[in-house]
Amino acid sequence: MHTDALIARLRTTLGDDGVLTDPDVTAGYERDMMPLAPHGSPLAVALPATTEQVREVVRACAEHGVPIVPRGAGSGLSGAANAIAGCVVLVTTRMNRILEVDPDNRLAVVEPGVVNLDLRGAVEKHGLFYPPDPSSYDWCTVGGNLATNAGGLCCVKYGVTTDSVLGLHVVLADGELLTTGRRTVKGVAGYDLTRLFVGSEGTLGVITQATVALRPLPQAPGTLVAAFGSTEAAGAAVTRVVREGVVPSLMEIMDAVSIEAVETHLKTELGAGRGCAALLICQSDSGGEAAHRELSAIEQVCRDAGAELAHTTYDLAEGALLLTARRAVLTALEVYGAWLTDDVCVPRTRIADLIAGCARISADVGLRVAVVGHAGDGNMHPTIVYDPASADEFARASRAFDEILALGLSLGGTVTGEHGIGKIKRDWLAREIGPVGLRAHRAIKRALDPGNLFNPGSMFDLA
Amino acid sequence: MHTDALIARLRTTLGDDGVLTDPDVTAGYERDMMPLAPHGSPLAVALPATTEQVREVVRACAEHGVPIVPRGAGSGLSGAANAIAGCVVLVTTRMNRILEVDPDNRLAVVEPGVVNLDLRGAVEKHGLFYPPDPSSYDWCTVGGNLATNAGGLCCVKYGVTTDSVLGLHVVLADGELLTTGRRTVKGVAGYDLTRLFVGSEGTLGVITQATVALRPLPQAPGTLVAAFGSTEAAGAAVTRVVREGVVPSLMEIMDAVSIEAVETHLKTELGAGRGCAALLICQSDSGGEAAHRELSAIEQVCRDAGAELAHTTYDLAEGALLLTARRAVLTALEVYGAWLTDDVCVPRTRIADLIAGCARISADVGLRVAVVGHAGDGNMHPTIVYDPASADEFARASRAFDEILALGLSLGGTVTGEHGIGKIKRDWLAREIGPVGLRAHRAIKRALDPGNLFNPGSMFDLA
Repeated sequence: MHTDALIARLRTTLGDDGVLTDPDVTAGYERDMMPLAPHGSPLAVALPATTEQVREVVRACAEHGVPIVPRGAGSGLSGAANAIAGCVVLVTTRMNRILEVDPDNRLAVVEPGVVNLDLRGAVEKHGLFYPPDPSSYDWCTVGGNLATNAGGLCCVKYGVTTDSVLGLHVVLADGELLTTGRRTVKGVAGYDLTRLFVGSEGTLGVITQATVALRPLPQAPGTLVAAFGSTEAAGAAVTRVVREGVVPSLMEIMDAVSIEAVETHLKTELGAGRGCAALLICQSDSGGEAAHRELSAIEQVCRDAGAELAHTTYDLAEGALLLTARRAVLTALEVYGAWLTDDVCVPRTRIADLIAGCARISADVGLRVAVVGHAGDGNMHPTIVYDPASADEFARASRAFDEILALGLSLGGTVTGEHGIGKIKRDWLAREIGPVGLRAHRAIKRALDPGNLFNPGSMFDLA
Repeated sequence: MHTDALIARLRTTLGDDGVLTDPDVTAGYERDMMPLAPHGSPLAVALPATTEQVREVVRACAEHGVPIVPRGAGSGLSGAANAIAGCVVLVTTRMNRILEVDPDNRLAVVEPGVVNLDLRGAVEKHGLFYPPDPSSYDWCTVGGNLATNAGGLCCVKYGVTTDSVLGLHVVLADGELLTTGRRTVKGVAGYDLTRLFVGSEGTLGVITQATVALRPLPQAPGTLVAAFGSTEAAGAAVTRVVREGVVPSLMEIMDAVSIEAVETHLKTELGAGRGCAALLICQSDSGGEAAHRELSAIEQVCRDAGAELAHTTYDLAEGALLLTARRAVLTALEVYGAWLTDDVCVPRTRIADLIAGCARISADVGLRVAVVGHAGDGNMHPTIVYDPASADEFARASRAFDEILALGLSLGGTVTGEHGIGKIKRDWLAREIGPVGLRAHRAIKRALDPGNLFNPGSMFDLA
């Protein structure tokens, strides 16, 4: 059968260990971390180690009419990297070399399979900083970060992945290698193809190399925690911080459900017992007097907004402990069941409204909903807890997931702040961008991938 | 004749004063500020005041097969807004309302005809800052800035126009209104169409509204000036500043030719008489101790690199005077003849090589070449002075212009850091991005503008 010929050709290109076809093995590449997303069984998993090998995989699949789903580490939360039945999953984890760190021009050139944390570590040795820090930074890859335009805790001050990219190498659907962007920090020659591919979720090509811009390593952070008796007060504090023109390097919010879960999980005391309805955790990495100025301004804003406690520390261990609490939310929720984390971004003035709405949705579906998020840019992750053994609870969780998206849109927000559309929010993308936006997306997809080779049906249908 | 019908339809839509056809009047809309670029006589100049009027102009022109060249104030330096024979020049200057300033979410919503300086002033009242500051900021429009992805002096710290845009309204070739992006500071729903249109130089659609992100108003700047006996020493200082991780809010360089011209023009003393080969002018807007720390670090770097003078002032008038000298270069050069300003961006380590190369090109063509530029991001503007009455000098100036681009590319740079491709650098775009890049550009252009309605032949040919 003709797929045998494809497999044979892939083996010739990649070697036997570069092509996985055993269903028990390929099953591990069928899906990412989002339980809601559909997934199918791939024909094969291809593990190219070079750009030339990627080109050959693309050409082979194109000739055989077999779709390709590009994949990094599989840490995604939208099913973008989920296999579709009969596809080839093209995994970039073997392309994991840091090709260059140029401290004098503050840039690095990397392959897509480099783990985010490894890049951070490599540039830190040169006193440099690669900002994007999605929660999965210790195992997600830069290629996946690029494909999804990943965010993280750093975004309030340093932006998302696209803000740190200078140029890309991309293998197109015809197997040609496109280079976009440049090594200079400025440049306007032609369309901004770099940023078209960043966040395109593997639907337009396979990123095989990236030149990323680095920043000076920030100062050791000071950390502030503030506890509020109401989410409204916490929301007001966020608005006021933005209004005052203070730009912290991190500004996270946890609601009462999150706080309680973390207290149970870490056996610590964050204030739930004292009626704490929301915590804000802020950092400044400006150093010295500037950090003191920023954090004391935020502390004052929190007090003015009615914070019951506002505590600033320059002790790194204490600061790290507070961040550990924030980062532990999803794990902590597992004591109650499986979690389904949503991702909406609202104007920063509407955070309290979002949290209140999530409480209503929680009551309505009868499931616990914890709200944590990047308050500094309005990017919230309401997380629904359900019993994975109960089809009914899963259905209610799915309903809550959608209602949270509708709520986000109604507050002037977007259906995804950083996780992406993937295979779970296609209808919501259409709703957010409207028919004209969808037509523009389809036109661009057809222009660059006329055979619908890459990740067909993800993000939107071509129909 | 059928164009009469088009003119009549435009008059019905825009009123008699919204459609200019008198050749003496339309001649004023034929070209921008770049003397090298070709231009033709338009059929008409259309001055819509609303998005609906833009849509109707687009539909009318599409039906009549008459191309549209979108235009802001005409301050461009690449001929992107230059008329082509028989086109309709669609001028957005009547769409000049600031629709909203939202200090709590740090954003503004504006029409494209708003003058950059007016937007800056309007948001400053709220303690906010719109960073993009091209040299023409007192008369260029935000729409033109968006279309060209304009830069300026701010970029070293605050990025270019695209870094301050959240969303757009764009009228497409079929007259439909596309909305891109969002009001939130984060969002990854769909392709980054916003940044595809930013910098597309009027070839993909007409921007009729923009939502821009604002920053807190920076502190009053401290200013440092350093004089070097060689451009190599100045270049070494720039590299070292980048390497040390200092991020000034402005970092400009002037070479000996620029310094001498400004001294003559402003009747001031900048050091040319003392053998000064290059000046660096830096600012920090971080305020307080942070500004002192940054500027004294830069001052030390300059001294270590061999600066003959390094002087820091926190006197605003003195700082403004130094900036005036920098901004006066082009005007100052007019005493010698007409100027032709180029725009290349090189890795920041190659600035001295670029200046040295420009000196060679200057000697080669026998014309004065002054190099000024945004040293902090490697974006240089070598400016050739020629006698506009001499065809021979113009030809030599044009040769120098091209040789500077070749030099920039050979140093690992790009043929345009911020002015754009327009109608003068089409061959250079092709050279920089290569055949695969060009094919991708053409595919996207055809996808969004299949009839080649918008600015045909600008940036690249569809052929």
